[in-house]
Amino acid sequence: MTPALPSQSPAPRRRGRPPRTEGAPDAPAARDRILTAARNEFAERGYDKTSIRGIAKAAGVDPALVHHYFGTKDQIFGAAVELIFAPTLAAPDAVHGGSREGAGERMARFMFGVWENPVTRLPLLAVMRSALTNEAAAAVLRGMIERRLLLRMVVELHVSNPEFRAQLAASHMIGIAMLRYVIRMEPMASAPVEDIVAMVGPTLQRYLTED
Amino acid sequence: MTPALPSQSPAPRRRGRPPRTEGAPDAPAARDRILTAARNEFAERGYDKTSIRGIAKAAGVDPALVHHYFGTKDQIFGAAVELIFAPTLAAPDAVHGGSREGAGERMARFMFGVWENPVTRLPLLAVMRSALTNEAAAAVLRGMIERRLLLRMVVELHVSNPEFRAQLAASHMIGIAMLRYVIRMEPMASAPVEDIVAMVGPTLQRYLTED
Repeated sequence: MTPALPSQSPAPRRRGRPPRTEGAPDAPAARDRILTAARNEFAERGYDKTSIRGIAKAAGVDPALVHHYFGTKDQIFGAAVELIFAPTLAAPDAVHGGSREGAGERMARFMFGVWENPVTRLPLLAVMRSALTNEAAAAVLRGMIERRLLLRMVVELHVSNPEFRAQLAASHMIGIAMLRYVIRMEPMASAPVEDIVAMVGPTLQRYLTED
Repeated sequence: MTPALPSQSPAPRRRGRPPRTEGAPDAPAARDRILTAARNEFAERGYDKTSIRGIAKAAGVDPALVHHYFGTKDQIFGAAVELIFAPTLAAPDAVHGGSREGAGERMARFMFGVWENPVTRLPLLAVMRSALTNEAAAAVLRGMIERRLLLRMVVELHVSNPEFRAQLAASHMIGIAMLRYVIRMEPMASAPVEDIVAMVGPTLQRYLTED
């Protein structure tokens, strides 16, 4: 929707919608554009090299608007991380959405479903890099995983020390991601997903279900 | 040994030792000092922020001497990485130096022996960070691990796909290190090493020995 130009009469008021002032971006669209820009900036440049100003520029808005919707750099990083992790947040549903015997394999397959696709993988790796090189970013990531992922994973794990076991399982997949996609060490980098799932599935199964 | 001062007569020649010119550092000591400085610089600043000039300054030598002994930045990074990984390079001996049944547990305990000590852990994490954020650093690390670690680990693994299995085992430990020491997520961050070894030992055992 284009804002009214100076030479035209003001756009007619639409019922239920506040009048639009010239130049004021449509609020929900602006917020989305800022969040998308934030995700892209953090994914491309990492936490350290991303700024509110850079995000604002990429979104085509004033930096004050970024502050208005999201607050501090850490707060917008948190929002971007939640967006980047959105596909991963479905992991508990995958793990718990089937027979108990298949939980480990489902977890492994689910993670590869996210990582084998560069569109979902690259921003995730960028977030991991940021967490590795910046304490504030690590704290944001930690908080997000605890609130949005870990709780939902463990609530249906009927084993002792479920948080510990969920983290053992997650750590295994994270380590595989590092060798396969980041350090790119062979043969892990090129191994068929099926081969990895065949080895790792039983491991995750034991962690998640066997007391 | 202090170099001769201008007002003194030159130091007497010592049999078997080349004459020392004023200001010329004792060669082996200088090389060691440079390597130690390189390790510290890379460990503190990471790959990107470390330079030949910075290393030379920390070692108290001319940058030309750094080039003389080590070559390019990647070559001195490689030498520093080998120094930083020296404790880890004993892993194959630990794994293979005992009964087959204890291999997995020995590997897990050995890794914790290196990581639980901040003196050995911190430079390792710095190298991992560098590899994560810099492609050249990742290539150096990859080459060093392949040449110095992987080969010796697999030569005594009598299973199918020994390199793949060794990397599965290593990836598990790397992922645990990331959760425990870098992202510092609880309960993994504070779990007793014994608890982790109890869960992970059997996993590594299966990867390393069971076909």
